[in-house]
Amino acid sequence: MEKVKLKLLYSDIKPELDMIEKELEQAVDSESPLLNDASLHLLQAGGKRIRPVFVLLAGKFGNYNIDVMKRVAVPLELIHMASLVHDDVIDDSELRRGKPTVKAEWNNSVAMYTGDFILARALEYITEIEDPKLHQILSKTMIEVCRGEIIQIEDKYKLDQNLRDYLRRIKRKTALLISSSCELGALVSGADLKTAAHLRRFGYFIGMSFQIIDDILDFTSSDEELGKPAGSDFMQGNMTLPVLCARKDQAIYELLKNNLQKDMTDEERLTIVKTIRNSSAIEEAKKISEKYLEKALEELSYLPKSSASKTMRKIAFFIGKRKF
Amino acid sequence: MEKVKLKLLYSDIKPELDMIEKELEQAVDSESPLLNDASLHLLQAGGKRIRPVFVLLAGKFGNYNIDVMKRVAVPLELIHMASLVHDDVIDDSELRRGKPTVKAEWNNSVAMYTGDFILARALEYITEIEDPKLHQILSKTMIEVCRGEIIQIEDKYKLDQNLRDYLRRIKRKTALLISSSCELGALVSGADLKTAAHLRRFGYFIGMSFQIIDDILDFTSSDEELGKPAGSDFMQGNMTLPVLCARKDQAIYELLKNNLQKDMTDEERLTIVKTIRNSSAIEEAKKISEKYLEKALEELSYLPKSSASKTMRKIAFFIGKRKF
Repeated sequence: MEKVKLKLLYSDIKPELDMIEKELEQAVDSESPLLNDASLHLLQAGGKRIRPVFVLLAGKFGNYNIDVMKRVAVPLELIHMASLVHDDVIDDSELRRGKPTVKAEWNNSVAMYTGDFILARALEYITEIEDPKLHQILSKTMIEVCRGEIIQIEDKYKLDQNLRDYLRRIKRKTALLISSSCELGALVSGADLKTAAHLRRFGYFIGMSFQIIDDILDFTSSDEELGKPAGSDFMQGNMTLPVLCARKDQAIYELLKNNLQKDMTDEERLTIVKTIRNSSAIEEAKKISEKYLEKALEELSYLPKSSASKTMRKIAFFIGKRKF
Repeated sequence: MEKVKLKLLYSDIKPELDMIEKELEQAVDSESPLLNDASLHLLQAGGKRIRPVFVLLAGKFGNYNIDVMKRVAVPLELIHMASLVHDDVIDDSELRRGKPTVKAEWNNSVAMYTGDFILARALEYITEIEDPKLHQILSKTMIEVCRGEIIQIEDKYKLDQNLRDYLRRIKRKTALLISSSCELGALVSGADLKTAAHLRRFGYFIGMSFQIIDDILDFTSSDEELGKPAGSDFMQGNMTLPVLCARKDQAIYELLKNNLQKDMTDEERLTIVKTIRNSSAIEEAKKISEKYLEKALEELSYLPKSSASKTMRKIAFFIGKRKF
């Protein structure tokens, strides 16, 4: 449902996005049946394609040529897909978007190599871009994404971490790749450096806001809406913003502490989800998300008004309000 | 012991290799203690550094500049390291070169992300090379390496596979990265395309020979010499050349078949190792390795004689005779 609504916002670039979708399918094609099945399974599980969307929209600020833009849009989505499939191994996730994950449908080894393969394909795609600056931005982003994922392992089950630890983690996990999508889209289309910098920061702030909303939805949505059990983040040991806000209440702190790293029953899980949902933590987290959203909109205000900037603004508002 | 002897052959490029070693250490440095420990553990487990050696030697056929050469030598070793640490997850290996693997010392998740991180570092390094052709060769090689690893999963425990399946697997698993090391070393130093092509083929043939010897040693060496249990390949379901040669004997075929995908006792494992070691399979496999070695030497014969080609020849002979 939400995906459909979001796609309406993309109507300006619909034909190009359909083309990107076909390119993605071709990109993961290989001789190996196992690899094909696993990659297509992942691809067809869908997703918002937010990274290609931002690449294309950012490209509208320069000399937009879809044959050049796709060389950046496709690999950025592939890198994101590769990180998801590896993430599911770390988090031992059985479901993503209502479908079994690659690691659940096959196993951890297949998930690992499917991720490796998709990543290698992403790299092959991007080699067609000759500007070394783009490669540097992308490889630095990938390092930070990996670091973020390692830090996520290190920070697991630590109820007493700082807010700063969380923000640094989601920056690396989500915001940087969206930020780079905007920046690379601008640069590859030849937009000027100032425009590229505004778009990079827009992407960063939107990415932060987006991930915070995602982390809120893990507590406020139903299992059906999420396509996986609500409260999965907490069960997997990922201490997200709602948890960090909620723990300030001593009674909630004790409840969380007592359920850390424990095989929870469904009832225990739902108790935690409901407790956090009904606490002030949700509003508090939403406010932080909104601050990032405002900053994102401010960056847009420095750019010339255009159909692309209008669509970006709409996506930003949509992200702020999305329900699941 | 063997490593020491092999290093004597490298004496020409010893100072440069020491520098590469330091660069490798720097490359895996990060803020995360977990990532640092795992990466250094992997790096310090050693290895023959055969890929950097071939990069540097191939560079001697052009305009050798160590500051340029290292931009290729370091990432090729890093890519190899990343593939090793992911391989250990697939094969569920506890030991490598006599030391616990990353997945054994930590766990599969850490091993996966350590591999991802090291790979991202490799990519960051190589972005400093501006020639898109090099990036294309490298990304295509990486895709084939991934494919090889997926095929290795698909072919596991299949005693009835073709010799061709095995050869295709080791081509992707080992020969291509060594081949690309030679080719990229030549290209980055500005050697002419004909020279680069001979070196590429040299690397391919040496790589094939090298891997076959490795697979033979898994049966002919002792647990101590290998730094892991002899017969590990078979236990992990990897049907290597000695197995494919030995299975032609009906009695051996039955023995292997009965022990496939089974929790073998140490006695059962040693029975299989001894049976293959004492069969004609070892000689047969050696002959195939020697054929590749001859082809490698033939490629060298088309190139001008130099200190570098002499060292390459010595390494080739060494590989053919190595005991463990």
